[in-house]
Amino acid sequence: MLIKRLAIIGVGLIGGSLARALRQAAAVEYVSGYSPDKTEAERAVELGVVDRCDLDPAAAVAAADVAVIAVPMGAMQSIMTRISSALPPHAIATDVGSVKGPVLTWAQQCLRPHGIRFVPGHPIAGTEKSGVDAAVEDLFRNRRVILTPDPDCEPEAVKLITRMWQETGAVVETMDVVAHDRVLAATSHLPHVLAYALVDKLAAMDGDQSVFRYAAGGFADLTRVASSNPVMWRDIVLANAEAVAAILESYGSDLTCLAQAIRMRDGEEVLQVFTRAKQARDAFAAARCQATDALDAPRGCSS
Amino acid sequence: MLIKRLAIIGVGLIGGSLARALRQAAAVEYVSGYSPDKTEAERAVELGVVDRCDLDPAAAVAAADVAVIAVPMGAMQSIMTRISSALPPHAIATDVGSVKGPVLTWAQQCLRPHGIRFVPGHPIAGTEKSGVDAAVEDLFRNRRVILTPDPDCEPEAVKLITRMWQETGAVVETMDVVAHDRVLAATSHLPHVLAYALVDKLAAMDGDQSVFRYAAGGFADLTRVASSNPVMWRDIVLANAEAVAAILESYGSDLTCLAQAIRMRDGEEVLQVFTRAKQARDAFAAARCQATDALDAPRGCSS
Repeated sequence: MLIKRLAIIGVGLIGGSLARALRQAAAVEYVSGYSPDKTEAERAVELGVVDRCDLDPAAAVAAADVAVIAVPMGAMQSIMTRISSALPPHAIATDVGSVKGPVLTWAQQCLRPHGIRFVPGHPIAGTEKSGVDAAVEDLFRNRRVILTPDPDCEPEAVKLITRMWQETGAVVETMDVVAHDRVLAATSHLPHVLAYALVDKLAAMDGDQSVFRYAAGGFADLTRVASSNPVMWRDIVLANAEAVAAILESYGSDLTCLAQAIRMRDGEEVLQVFTRAKQARDAFAAARCQATDALDAPRGCSS
Repeated sequence: MLIKRLAIIGVGLIGGSLARALRQAAAVEYVSGYSPDKTEAERAVELGVVDRCDLDPAAAVAAADVAVIAVPMGAMQSIMTRISSALPPHAIATDVGSVKGPVLTWAQQCLRPHGIRFVPGHPIAGTEKSGVDAAVEDLFRNRRVILTPDPDCEPEAVKLITRMWQETGAVVETMDVVAHDRVLAATSHLPHVLAYALVDKLAAMDGDQSVFRYAAGGFADLTRVASSNPVMWRDIVLANAEAVAAILESYGSDLTCLAQAIRMRDGEEVLQVFTRAKQARDAFAAARCQATDALDAPRGCSS
């Protein structure tokens, strides 16, 4: 048994899926949970995701060996404050936040002064859905989990959290915290902002939204992430504000250049961008299919 | 029998799917096809998509009652020139091009002087795939087809082309040609440019493309259309250059404002954009599901 008592602080899509995966792998004996919402807490127990679910995060972590903080970025710091005195001194805490710089700072301020070991983590998985009902045991299979340990992270703690994620079928790697936030600004935060901005642009084009009647599958794919929780994503982009603003501005400049090329009917320039992009996108799809095919063929080739 | 002899000029995804759908509906007796590619032409006959497939578009239309020009935008004008003398005088021609302004101009120059009736059309359907092997009979079911007849279009011809598309299960409507090109710039051409530009941006971030290793499902959805044919899309955006450049610049300004708000940690502004977008996106998904559920439940709710 890898973990005797696990606490999932925030039993939503990510926290709930982690609990399901670890139970399925028989890597955990007892799971306590926390949800700020009474209905969700009851539902989490009813679905068998956790053994017990408290409305007080301190109660949920009271006997934990490992505590996974899986609340939205906006709630992270306050949760850390609330659990800091309740966590047993031997406990290892980790999180699943999308931006690692601020999380590390908060842990340094709230957890480590209490002697709690903390390992920052980020599973690169998720859907536009949220809530414990969306939790599935194979969410992390063949997905990457990035840990961003700083020099104060105890190697034993990093090893345990690595093994925990490996039990879910994830591929775990470590990365520098600044590099993580810069890379994720590009691969995740920027795309979400673009999708939100695109839908908002079209919605503004005409009041009754009839313009959407002429949108097809490509538009549907492109804007699916704009159905994600707006509060959660506001908190993510603000937590990574510098990196997101920088790449957003840089991408905006790229668009201005492309608009200029299109206006000038510079077919060569346009074709170069489109061709490079198609090659990179096809390579990404092939790599994604291959990685996923290894264990999980049916989900694989929707790339 | 709605159409005795149909010519599909360009037996690819769209032309091939139209032929399949009309055969399935028993709305057509004989289908001749044209492909510039010998292998594709043979494949089209082998798959039963067309009865005969010529490498010369003039031969394909020689006995046609209706000719559907389903070649990429970049080949449209030259194809019109090549078929103009071969089409029987009673024939009605239509097309499936994504931009209607230039198509109408070309038809006025190439077809109408020969007495050929021409109805501009555009099915709002497709995938990132292409070629006759990708053709399916239900591609247009519950999808919109927009006709953009000008005052010189004979009402009887518009009626026949309308009925032809209705036989495929599509919902047909007419629209002003300028309005069409402006709306499609927003709902289709802009999203494609954004996806291409995003993938190109990430590919440029590091030479070995390792940044894509940290991209998840949202990124895959968002950039799927960047696997579309780059030449085809260059020709589409150049054919609609003014409208595409205008909305690209306007969207670029939106991004600059958003970047500014993010840098200033203006959570209110960011949340407003994200929330409006989520509402519009959810409404779009619901409408899309509803429309598709009517006849085609399994495909419907991937919106």
